Amino acid sequence: MSTTPDRVAVIGLGNLGHALAETFLRQGIPTTVWNRDAAKADALVAAGATAAATAAEAIESSELVLVALLDATVARQVLTTAGDAVAGRALVNVTSGGPEDARELATWAAEHGARYLHGAVYAVPQTIGTAGSSISYSGAQDVHRRWQPKLDLLGKGTFLGADAGLASGYDVAILAGMYGMIGGFLHATAMASAAGVRATELTPMLLSWLADSFPALTTFAEEIDRGGYTGGESSLAMNQAGLSTIIRASRALDVPPDTLLPIKDLIDRQIAAGHGAASLSRAVESFRSAA
Amino acid sequence: MSTTPDRVAVIGLGNLGHALAETFLRQGIPTTVWNRDAAKADALVAAGATAAATAAEAIESSELVLVALLDATVARQVLTTAGDAVAGRALVNVTSGGPEDARELATWAAEHGARYLHGAVYAVPQTIGTAGSSISYSGAQDVHRRWQPKLDLLGKGTFLGADAGLASGYDVAILAGMYGMIGGFLHATAMASAAGVRATELTPMLLSWLADSFPALTTFAEEIDRGGYTGGESSLAMNQAGLSTIIRASRALDVPPDTLLPIKDLIDRQIAAGHGAASLSRAVESFRSAA
Repeated sequence: MSTTPDRVAVIGLGNLGHALAETFLRQGIPTTVWNRDAAKADALVAAGATAAATAAEAIESSELVLVALLDATVARQVLTTAGDAVAGRALVNVTSGGPEDARELATWAAEHGARYLHGAVYAVPQTIGTAGSSISYSGAQDVHRRWQPKLDLLGKGTFLGADAGLASGYDVAILAGMYGMIGGFLHATAMASAAGVRATELTPMLLSWLADSFPALTTFAEEIDRGGYTGGESSLAMNQAGLSTIIRASRALDVPPDTLLPIKDLIDRQIAAGHGAASLSRAVESFRSAA
Repeated sequence: MSTTPDRVAVIGLGNLGHALAETFLRQGIPTTVWNRDAAKADALVAAGATAAATAAEAIESSELVLVALLDATVARQVLTTAGDAVAGRALVNVTSGGPEDARELATWAAEHGARYLHGAVYAVPQTIGTAGSSISYSGAQDVHRRWQPKLDLLGKGTFLGADAGLASGYDVAILAGMYGMIGGFLHATAMASAAGVRATELTPMLLSWLADSFPALTTFAEEIDRGGYTGGESSLAMNQAGLSTIIRASRALDVPPDTLLPIKDLIDRQIAAGHGAASLSRAVESFRSAA
């Protein structure tokens, strides 16, 4: 198993790592794979992959090493165990985690002579290697430039900046936003159902209203960056009243309003601090004052 | 002040009622107004409105009576006080509240010889009477048909059905969904900011990801109506792991994850009941089992 510029190593063969290796193999790229539970490599070996006995052996096989492990803790353990094998390698870590995890591993990689690029994958494993997949990168831009032809096989790539934590920072924030929307959707369909409206009747109207609210969120983002919350077209006081009505209506429908209560709390705390006339966007300050 | 088919009464002159009366006056429609605090009528009287001394007097002036009060409790009080004055009138109540409030008032109206139509306004007061305003109605369809030319001056109207509670049912559900999205947005910008990303940098990517998630919500709605949660492309177990990562990342950034915890709880409870492989949409059942 010689180290060639053409060969790629994939460390970790969960759903994501498996999909990465499969995509490389489909494109005829020599691929070395490693997984703690070696049996997970079997199907890939049958498809032409080379299985390495250790993570270090896989890393030594290739200049480009994709890391797709369970979480940041496992990624740290596996790379630490491989140790000096990473010297001279380009590590592209797509393991999910927070920005501080990525920064920590970037520092560790630098201390061990490796280049580090972090990737946040916007795809389900099934869509890796298709037009439905995009990956944001941050960290070593030279790694992104040098290996872009291979990385672009996995999904549409965007380089965000030199801070290795940026890609994760965007990622965890976007997913937090998505889960907020999903929580709202589930609550909405539960309330609709209790009021005699089917989820499929509600959803087109709901989605159209959500899309209509996007420009307001764009305005809120400007207010947040300015730290100037004087917009006031949608004041904290108005939203406190509106949200109270929804919470009351939810209780009257026997649908527990638990997902809305912490959102109302963000609003209530700004009003208690005397900001009732300020824009709803000021509620973001409640996250900061609590921290 | 004679009762003519042309005259309209507006009961309640908060932001919404004021905007309704102003729109009618702008279209040259004789308009009678009433508000508990009479001073709020002054500007409208200057613009040609007739101020009534009591709600009953305003109601008696017009066949079509728009009711736009603070909340359902106030609406009930004001109408109850007016009592038999409502006989023969068409009451169009756009006061916000839950479906049971609307149904209760519809019953009361029927007992007092009035026709009742409930309206849910999708607009801020500034956009009443413009293309940016839409109103969903439910209840007495004859009222909607007879007065549609006047009602359509206020905003694009849709009639949802004969159940007076339907318009509110959609309304409170849609607003619950919107507040979920707003909570997610605020959390997302707080996390981004803690990770060194500006809200205006994050928001375009966030909104594009949210819009990309709409088809998944449509699929979830079908699963919810079927009560068949076997889709499984996005399982409860996968989302429990993903959401745990986001919550951990939020804490590591010193951003309290309070808005996400009740969403995770909806998921956790379905998994604890043995449904980890089911679609994320099954989390809606947690609202029902808690009720």
